[in-house]
Amino acid sequence: MRCRRCDNAMQDTADTTLPLRPFLAKLHPYTPGEQRAGANIVKLNTNENPYPPATAVIDEVGRAAARLALYPDPVSDSLRRALAAYHGVHPEQILVGNGSDEILRLLVHATIDQGGKVAVVDPTYSLYPVLAAQFEGSTEIYPLVDRQRLPEEIFDGEEPILLLPNPNPPIGTLFSRAEIADLCRARPQTLVAIDEAYVDFARRDAVPLLAEFSNLAITRTFSKSFSLAGMRIGYVIADAALVAALMKIKDSYNLNHLAQVAAAAAIASAKEMERNCARIVETREWTVRELRALGYELPDSHANFVFAIRPDAGEHYAKLRERGILVRYFDTPVLRDGMRITIGTPEQMEILIAALKEILSRGNP
Amino acid sequence: MRCRRCDNAMQDTADTTLPLRPFLAKLHPYTPGEQRAGANIVKLNTNENPYPPATAVIDEVGRAAARLALYPDPVSDSLRRALAAYHGVHPEQILVGNGSDEILRLLVHATIDQGGKVAVVDPTYSLYPVLAAQFEGSTEIYPLVDRQRLPEEIFDGEEPILLLPNPNPPIGTLFSRAEIADLCRARPQTLVAIDEAYVDFARRDAVPLLAEFSNLAITRTFSKSFSLAGMRIGYVIADAALVAALMKIKDSYNLNHLAQVAAAAAIASAKEMERNCARIVETREWTVRELRALGYELPDSHANFVFAIRPDAGEHYAKLRERGILVRYFDTPVLRDGMRITIGTPEQMEILIAALKEILSRGNP
Repeated sequence: MRCRRCDNAMQDTADTTLPLRPFLAKLHPYTPGEQRAGANIVKLNTNENPYPPATAVIDEVGRAAARLALYPDPVSDSLRRALAAYHGVHPEQILVGNGSDEILRLLVHATIDQGGKVAVVDPTYSLYPVLAAQFEGSTEIYPLVDRQRLPEEIFDGEEPILLLPNPNPPIGTLFSRAEIADLCRARPQTLVAIDEAYVDFARRDAVPLLAEFSNLAITRTFSKSFSLAGMRIGYVIADAALVAALMKIKDSYNLNHLAQVAAAAAIASAKEMERNCARIVETREWTVRELRALGYELPDSHANFVFAIRPDAGEHYAKLRERGILVRYFDTPVLRDGMRITIGTPEQMEILIAALKEILSRGNP
Repeated sequence: MRCRRCDNAMQDTADTTLPLRPFLAKLHPYTPGEQRAGANIVKLNTNENPYPPATAVIDEVGRAAARLALYPDPVSDSLRRALAAYHGVHPEQILVGNGSDEILRLLVHATIDQGGKVAVVDPTYSLYPVLAAQFEGSTEIYPLVDRQRLPEEIFDGEEPILLLPNPNPPIGTLFSRAEIADLCRARPQTLVAIDEAYVDFARRDAVPLLAEFSNLAITRTFSKSFSLAGMRIGYVIADAALVAALMKIKDSYNLNHLAQVAAAAAIASAKEMERNCARIVETREWTVRELRALGYELPDSHANFVFAIRPDAGEHYAKLRERGILVRYFDTPVLRDGMRITIGTPEQMEILIAALKEILSRGNP
């Protein structure tokens, strides 16, 4: 490892005599999707929304910037009340975080310690094993049947926490409300955390189940449907006792003032978000038809991305990249036959399809 | 605990059957200073800056709001480079966080586990014991001599981490560079973390010692001198190996895009920050003279607050509060004879002094 400033050799964690906890040397951090900029880049690799946030959000943020010398509300109370009204729950059932990343970390921190296990499916969101490792635990992996259906064994597990996205990346499968209820019922000693980051593209959420199951927690983000990935806002809806516990381990002022203002304005303008989601779903269905016509297999997706399967997907990923079109490729045994493509604007998807047609017409050398 | 929405009784953490780690039931969270708003409130209780951030900061934030649909840079690279140039260190020596709160939490997470100890002085920043408890550890307390001088014993301790603010709240004492060097030298197995939140009001920092001691870490915040408490930006300057370890346990996208933009603009406009600090130091010296004339004892402060000692400080705190003037009172054995007063504008401090004169002229009933 060399310094980018002076090209001197730099130390890595393993070399140090600092009193660091041993788990750190072995920990592999999460790899975020590439953030490449440029006028000609078609960026379909990190499930961002191609449409801007509601105009009211941008206006409110501009206005709020003058108030930055003061600390923000430490518990985002006015935002909690807005979210509670939006979902028809109590404000005490909501904790707002610096992205749902923070919420997911707090859930793991609150439930496992050294040697503890987090139950996950496979494939799934690749952040979860990192969170387990950060608290010196690991994951118990329940492979999905055909990469899509919950296996029987997951209903018998006894890990203190289960992290399950719904829809589940990178395929986009939507588990039914009945399956989630079954998980909560079959595993009363487990905190069943359903990560609904993409649920606004699916239109069937698990919120009504909260009235029935105190071991259910639902996480949400403003990064996808609300076009606010740059703002880092997420939240959990759960039993008030869980929220009270998480409050104790969050950073004192975990959400900055502008994020609180932006989120409140976004909720007040939720109709704009719904319109954007409808456009993205329409573009998704067009994209699925076009990709299938090109010989890709596509499982049904209920999110703002699709998983396009062909034996040569890895090569297509690289060739798209050469053309400035970024999609995500996971080189793992379970996922290396496909690429995850974020749904952008109709114009972006037409560029993608045209490029794939061109790549296919040249054949593989 | 009752719901503020429907007045139903709500559960607290202790009642739950959720699989929560036992330490959570006993954990007492940090109490942030009161955030009360209103046209007639004189808010001198949370060490905020009475002057707004640089105009360029507000402008840049407004411009950046349109770009929020995309994820932020996960490691705040351009801001790291700006901070490295500002301090004359390598970018690899800097980690930026969601307030220095996040940085301090990461330092504790990286060094202690169940039963571990964090060395602290007394009095000091009241967040530190909470951080230790969040990782199932506790603090080893080294009481300051006369609330100001480092005790001999602290040089012999062997805790993996020492958290020491410089200047040290709520008194405002500044430890010398030689004392910090002695700590690093005497405790080679300890990560000596110097919290320089208030150092811009003191004008003598420990940054030059980084070249000499790899067990030294210096934390900074944009909340005080840069007038950006609402934006949540902090950072650590340390050995690159420590930064590499902390990178592994921070949230993937820990700093939102607007905070990165605001911090870069603030560093580019650092001259404005320095001007505000000079004004605050001038107002501080005026305030100290006035308070001493009213019979308060004031240890020298090198921060944007003073600690005003009188046996009846607690009553004065309450009477100021009745008049809409908020200062901070800590009802602990070591601190209950004084109040911590943030230095505001000259006009705000004149209101404070006038109110105290009036309170004193009435005498205590």
